[in-house]
Amino acid sequence: MKLLEQRIVSDGIIGAGNVLKVDSFLNHQMDVEFLNKLAEEFYRLYKDCGVNKILTIEASGIGIACLTAQFFKVPMVFAKKSKTKNIAGDVYTSKVESFTHGTVYDIIVSKNFLNPDDKVLIIDDFLAKGQALLGLTKLVKDAGAEVVGCGIVIEKAFQDGGEIIRNSGVRVESLARIKSMSVEDGVEFC
Amino acid sequence: MKLLEQRIVSDGIIGAGNVLKVDSFLNHQMDVEFLNKLAEEFYRLYKDCGVNKILTIEASGIGIACLTAQFFKVPMVFAKKSKTKNIAGDVYTSKVESFTHGTVYDIIVSKNFLNPDDKVLIIDDFLAKGQALLGLTKLVKDAGAEVVGCGIVIEKAFQDGGEIIRNSGVRVESLARIKSMSVEDGVEFC
Repeated sequence: MKLLEQRIVSDGIIGAGNVLKVDSFLNHQMDVEFLNKLAEEFYRLYKDCGVNKILTIEASGIGIACLTAQFFKVPMVFAKKSKTKNIAGDVYTSKVESFTHGTVYDIIVSKNFLNPDDKVLIIDDFLAKGQALLGLTKLVKDAGAEVVGCGIVIEKAFQDGGEIIRNSGVRVESLARIKSMSVEDGVEFC
Repeated sequence: MKLLEQRIVSDGIIGAGNVLKVDSFLNHQMDVEFLNKLAEEFYRLYKDCGVNKILTIEASGIGIACLTAQFFKVPMVFAKKSKTKNIAGDVYTSKVESFTHGTVYDIIVSKNFLNPDDKVLIIDDFLAKGQALLGLTKLVKDAGAEVVGCGIVIEKAFQDGGEIIRNSGVRVESLARIKSMSVEDGVEFC
């Protein structure tokens, strides 16, 4: 999506260790008007797939997932990263390794909010090694529901997450796919 | 707001220890169409106050804050709960005690996203003891910016957070104010 690629080039900052900072518009400060254009693109891509639920993971996926759910006129569910007092005992759960934070954590979704007849679109801001997406697709499958596909804002295509998910038979649509990036040469898209 | 009170009565579940579960529409599964009506009400209440930024805290505030930012046509910023590799060193920070989780944590906002000329509307899903709001107002004040007010979905008015914040001179608008609640007698609103 050209509009997004231009925004990444103009406002993204590449840091050490292949960290792409897009926190001025995507995952710390959110340019909601701009994100709505991305959400509308997810709708265009998946509008004929019978999606009846949007699923994401806290925290930075929530904004774009919420905006996307508006276009589909369906509820959005976000997986939580740890069990709190406010969640009933009856949950679907899987483990996710975070390479950004160097930790492994559990994600959970209440069984009340994923049902066998759900057709789920998974939305997230980033796809790199694919661990979060794998965890989310497991939750959906454990519920007996169907993963219609994944909508990703930025895919680091030089890492293997996208290939792993696509090879598992799940449709993945990424609005920007980064082929390579470096402090010296900037960002190159696929 | 009558619509919200009705929804709390019909879909909220009161658990032990004064926990009100509204995770079917507010903070786990999100009924985005419904939440947009709440967001519009925040806009009605604060539209003449020159708001140029919405601030919330991850995770469950992000959805409603994002929707509210749409109506104001301004960016939304969410405070993060711990320092990650993706945040620059230059941050405003304060400490927040969570009574739900029994922990104290740091919240941070990059100095890039709060400026002295900002007029900030703080949005959150719950107000109970007010610790998150106090932390967020401190961040805004540390930036030399102005807190226009707070927009809260559900205030537990039988706890003292709302009084503390209002007594500090900050306008607080809560769409539902719960006077008392119990498993036996249900919810009573102010």
